[in-house]
Amino acid sequence: MAKNLTPRASDYSQWYNELVELAGLAEHSPVRGCMVIKPYGYSIWENMQSVLDSKFKETGHSNAYFPLFIPKSFFTKEASHVQGFAKECAVVTHYRLKTNEAGEIVVDQDAKLEEELIVRPTSETIIWNTYKGWIQSYRDLPILINQWANVVRWEMRTRLFLRTSEFLWQEGHTAHATSEEAIIESEQMLQVYADFVENWMALPVIKGIKSANERFAGAIETYCIEALMQDGKALQAGTSHFLGQNFAKAFDVKFTSREGIQEYVWATSWGVSTRLMGALIMAHADDDGLVLPPKLAPIQVVIVPVYKTEEDLEKIRLVVANITAKLKQQHIRVHFDTRDFLRPGFKFAEWELKGIPVRLALGLRDIENQTVEVARRDTREKTNWALSAVSERMTDLLEEIQNQMFERALNFRNENIRTANSYTEFQHLLDEKSGFVSAHWDGTPETEQLIKDETKATIRCIPLNNTLEAGFCIKTGNASIQRVLFARAY
Amino acid sequence: MAKNLTPRASDYSQWYNELVELAGLAEHSPVRGCMVIKPYGYSIWENMQSVLDSKFKETGHSNAYFPLFIPKSFFTKEASHVQGFAKECAVVTHYRLKTNEAGEIVVDQDAKLEEELIVRPTSETIIWNTYKGWIQSYRDLPILINQWANVVRWEMRTRLFLRTSEFLWQEGHTAHATSEEAIIESEQMLQVYADFVENWMALPVIKGIKSANERFAGAIETYCIEALMQDGKALQAGTSHFLGQNFAKAFDVKFTSREGIQEYVWATSWGVSTRLMGALIMAHADDDGLVLPPKLAPIQVVIVPVYKTEEDLEKIRLVVANITAKLKQQHIRVHFDTRDFLRPGFKFAEWELKGIPVRLALGLRDIENQTVEVARRDTREKTNWALSAVSERMTDLLEEIQNQMFERALNFRNENIRTANSYTEFQHLLDEKSGFVSAHWDGTPETEQLIKDETKATIRCIPLNNTLEAGFCIKTGNASIQRVLFARAY
Repeated sequence: MAKNLTPRASDYSQWYNELVELAGLAEHSPVRGCMVIKPYGYSIWENMQSVLDSKFKETGHSNAYFPLFIPKSFFTKEASHVQGFAKECAVVTHYRLKTNEAGEIVVDQDAKLEEELIVRPTSETIIWNTYKGWIQSYRDLPILINQWANVVRWEMRTRLFLRTSEFLWQEGHTAHATSEEAIIESEQMLQVYADFVENWMALPVIKGIKSANERFAGAIETYCIEALMQDGKALQAGTSHFLGQNFAKAFDVKFTSREGIQEYVWATSWGVSTRLMGALIMAHADDDGLVLPPKLAPIQVVIVPVYKTEEDLEKIRLVVANITAKLKQQHIRVHFDTRDFLRPGFKFAEWELKGIPVRLALGLRDIENQTVEVARRDTREKTNWALSAVSERMTDLLEEIQNQMFERALNFRNENIRTANSYTEFQHLLDEKSGFVSAHWDGTPETEQLIKDETKATIRCIPLNNTLEAGFCIKTGNASIQRVLFARAY
Repeated sequence: MAKNLTPRASDYSQWYNELVELAGLAEHSPVRGCMVIKPYGYSIWENMQSVLDSKFKETGHSNAYFPLFIPKSFFTKEASHVQGFAKECAVVTHYRLKTNEAGEIVVDQDAKLEEELIVRPTSETIIWNTYKGWIQSYRDLPILINQWANVVRWEMRTRLFLRTSEFLWQEGHTAHATSEEAIIESEQMLQVYADFVENWMALPVIKGIKSANERFAGAIETYCIEALMQDGKALQAGTSHFLGQNFAKAFDVKFTSREGIQEYVWATSWGVSTRLMGALIMAHADDDGLVLPPKLAPIQVVIVPVYKTEEDLEKIRLVVANITAKLKQQHIRVHFDTRDFLRPGFKFAEWELKGIPVRLALGLRDIENQTVEVARRDTREKTNWALSAVSERMTDLLEEIQNQMFERALNFRNENIRTANSYTEFQHLLDEKSGFVSAHWDGTPETEQLIKDETKATIRCIPLNNTLEAGFCIKTGNASIQRVLFARAY
């Protein structure tokens, strides 16, 4: 191994693909557009899931599970919803295979479904059909449910984690008695996502709302968090939708209010996916591999012994046992790499590739000196610590790494929000600098589409608490009340 | 509400269906054979998952994720495997919908897949195709992976949790250098399952191996745990398969041994599913609803206030705050039911329906007397405890309930293993007593099939460490070396 990655500067896309595979995160499967999430990649996803799941429960949500399949007739009940997803649906048409006369296994044409089933691309329709049976009175509200699931959106051009035909995600689906309560819920969940991405993934986000073109199919308002990747492209890291009464009307879900009046129920939905893995990689990784924020790293501290003989290793083992016991007491995830068929240099490179925040290297000389070499993955700094100081300093070091990773990403993001006051300047900034471009826009879907067609940039969001500022649309020159954030995006 | 369940004695099957729906565990969805797992049911499943997941990790396994879809050509590579699953496969044939000239949403016939995709009924084929890329040398072995996933096996006659077209499960898939190591792994995982079902679900199991007829399609040996339900029918609660080199040969997965020889890899797979929810219900629930073993109960202790005025409730609230704080310190899951629109009697019935192990009822008079009424769900016993004793006695009570539930199920199971020495006696026992029947069998698949056709009983297992005992097959009179366990089963 010890194969070098293609440097980011020479081919960012190639670097990403190599890193995902070599670090053991994921790989392409022979099934078009579907990936295999490998154990190391999955363990990072499990850490993400665990934090998010706690946050959902703290905010009053319960998990449940709804069917993988959606009857076509349900799917078509909300008109804009089906328009948004129809072109990327996997369709189940038969329920049996058989052996034909030539001895081949073929689809049994006698086992054709009366109604085709869609493999869920998202679950609003099947869930709102179910909620109809659960909601009669205001006392049945709110319903605050989340589902961890796989979904399928057929993709022709795929990229591991970022765009795959099947992906893993969570989808929250809530039902409320008032529009106000539903809006508060969608904003709350956006805040939960922002908190997770910033404080666990160490990745700053801009909270905002989507323009009509970028809105979820079936939503009244889509809230989003947008992050910036190292190559200057934006990535939507999570969305939360205020769905109004669209799905309640499509599935005829009414409730009797406190005042005894029959009303349609108000809805939200919100989701993040394994796409966050892509964001984590693209935001922090470098030419030597992954760089993980300590809070999400499956291993936070790896200890590599440097030795010649079995006897030496035994001496090191005694010292390490003491260190790991103390670190584990502090709930630090530590791993002692005793594989005997690999040289230390090889191990160093492998743990760097896997992005472990802190590496300790310990040899006999170190034990004599009562010191240990401490290497940070994020800054590549190496220092020597007194052995006796390891346990008391480690928590602080991990916290410092977490914070500095965030600060670094924040500085990068802030340096890459630029203002354009003309279309020429706008195009120049996109081509020469990339990043976010803050510009006036006349508010129409047509203009947004025109800009997208010409520059490949989309409106990432209208930031929440945006400052209103009179101006003129960079494209049409029409009046504009505020700047919005454009970027080329994943 | 407070709707009574149909008693078990009058219609066991109806009782089960009503209980599952009324206790908020699951319901049928409009998608044929697929269920909705409701929040309360899902929270029990989450507790099961969490315990099992820890046990898998303690025994060295990591989680990963493989595609939902399996190309038909993979599926057909292992001959007996495809024969076992072909008749219950959901098949994806198209990847797009479109709007036709009449304005209807229809399957786009231009988007037909070149090769049909099977929605996984189990993942051996896609996983062994992947392992081929991961395994070169003995150093790459063992691979110890588990996947939490949904699977689909098309069913015509379905029952919530017990038999559904889509269900949730975990599937372990391991790869080994030697047959011995693979066998040890499959036996180890059977032991993990038995430990979980007995010590968490409070349900005794018989460990054994399956006869050829009941073996997993593609396995050399299937290990199983069999449990007995209250109606005397058996239920297979988990299986662990030694797959030999069958899948390694089908997918050409070889490794270079320590001695430099190319050999096929040895495999196991093992799984339990949401079927365990069905077992949990059928083993312990009664005519008033669910009875949960404390270790898996989402709420272990519920406190119901008995009051007239808001002022009274405030006084109760103060006492309860103190109790709950102390119980939570002991990691006891406690819930205070303050819903003001329901009478205490209604709440009692609801928590009984939901199977909460311990209910405390607390009114003003109790506070004056410094006592509290403690009601056990399993035995329906009510006693008064000193308020001051609640926190110190509760852990013991929960443990006692857990143990007694197991003992009760164990006695029931043991009383329902009977011995038959003739076919007449065998049929009589099945019809009059049900339960397990231990009988001699000549060891042939043909005889087993004949017995099944005539009596609906199958061989549940040949118990591990079975005593060898010469005898004559109850059906054919041919020589037999041991008794095996028959039963009618879910």
